[in-house]
Amino acid sequence: MNGWLAIAGLGPGDDAMVTPEVSDALAEATDVIGYIPYVARVAPRDGLTLHPSDNRVELDRARHALELARAGHRVVVVSSGDPGVFAMAAAIFEAVEHGDPAWALLDIRVLPGITAMLAAAARAGAPLGHDFCAINLSDNLKPQAIIDRRVRLAAEADFAIAFYNPRSRARPDGLATALAILRDTCADRRPILFARAVSTAQEHLHVVALPDARAELADMRTVVIVGSSRTRMVPGTRFLYTPRSAA
Amino acid sequence: MNGWLAIAGLGPGDDAMVTPEVSDALAEATDVIGYIPYVARVAPRDGLTLHPSDNRVELDRARHALELARAGHRVVVVSSGDPGVFAMAAAIFEAVEHGDPAWALLDIRVLPGITAMLAAAARAGAPLGHDFCAINLSDNLKPQAIIDRRVRLAAEADFAIAFYNPRSRARPDGLATALAILRDTCADRRPILFARAVSTAQEHLHVVALPDARAELADMRTVVIVGSSRTRMVPGTRFLYTPRSAA
Repeated sequence: MNGWLAIAGLGPGDDAMVTPEVSDALAEATDVIGYIPYVARVAPRDGLTLHPSDNRVELDRARHALELARAGHRVVVVSSGDPGVFAMAAAIFEAVEHGDPAWALLDIRVLPGITAMLAAAARAGAPLGHDFCAINLSDNLKPQAIIDRRVRLAAEADFAIAFYNPRSRARPDGLATALAILRDTCADRRPILFARAVSTAQEHLHVVALPDARAELADMRTVVIVGSSRTRMVPGTRFLYTPRSAA
Repeated sequence: MNGWLAIAGLGPGDDAMVTPEVSDALAEATDVIGYIPYVARVAPRDGLTLHPSDNRVELDRARHALELARAGHRVVVVSSGDPGVFAMAAAIFEAVEHGDPAWALLDIRVLPGITAMLAAAARAGAPLGHDFCAINLSDNLKPQAIIDRRVRLAAEADFAIAFYNPRSRARPDGLATALAILRDTCADRRPILFARAVSTAQEHLHVVALPDARAELADMRTVVIVGSSRTRMVPGTRFLYTPRSAA
């Protein structure tokens, strides 16, 4: 039996945003591996073993998936959103680089998904319609000084900015620090979108001006999109967008 | 009849990456509007009028779509990739902001898709696995000086960088200029991915080190992903990735 490993993105929550290639991989899988709430999105069936695991065990999970694939299983590692954006794909390749040399020979595919910032942007209008960047505010794996510097340079470059993992119980202050840097660098009333649980029953979108933005508006299920200097609301609508032209 | 307007992303090319919600919108549409090669991806059927139009007429196309929706049609404006990333969504909201006040009252939805950089990243491994940015190298709508400054700041911030529209007949030098700025700013051999026509029969991926990168490796169908200082190949594999940790 020839095993394989697919690292698949489930999108933000609604099954209508799961691509057919991801659905097909799940239909062929013998094993699904991932963080508990993401594995919970996969319907159980005969012949499929679900392996939910806790957060912050990405490398253990990656090694488990690679071992199963090597043993001939058809394995799908699920992430929410896109697996290549602050999710499991990089962890898998880290494990391959530093692990069993046989893992380098496996059939590994990454199947993209709708990542949180693009789902949130679509719901709100088109705030990422001009140049933009994505910054993970988690300081689990990078020093706070690097995050601070990157936020400042992103604002100086006049990118729209998507913040992933803006806030958690373990890191309550990351977003507050980022907002302080933005207020210091930007000194305007650019809009900021707080988009929670997009495409689920808990979806909530909220737009505030930079001086009024507070970290408490975000939680673990929120992606935050900070406008560029050109981002604006369309008057008379709920839509937020960044014009295509720079000036 | 209640008209509506959906601005939908068809993904990079393969129908297996078109989300069900986009397929459903196309199935309900009376009119499909977009750039010629994207409209060509929609199957003709009774009751559906296809409106292909040339490149660089985005605002005319947006106004046409809004007029049809206002007249009661069910209109899908198609973009390749994601409509919110250097595509039609921003053009639609520009038209709404500056056009007929009745357009602001229309039922408008943006349906996200798999954008080129995420499809390319997935095929190559996980080069966008850490903080990254997306820059449109087209100078149609922004001064070259802004592009140059943004590329330099992105490199200083140590983002991985995705370049959209790296090269066309009208703008043969944009990517050469960006690569020169990167060589000046980075002074290393970080990998650069040239990903052409991902998920189509013409797909071609090519990775070179920054000093060896030449603009001629890109054309209109290419997205270019420049690694951060940490991006590397997994030895013994074809996979390119950026580790999750910053140092």
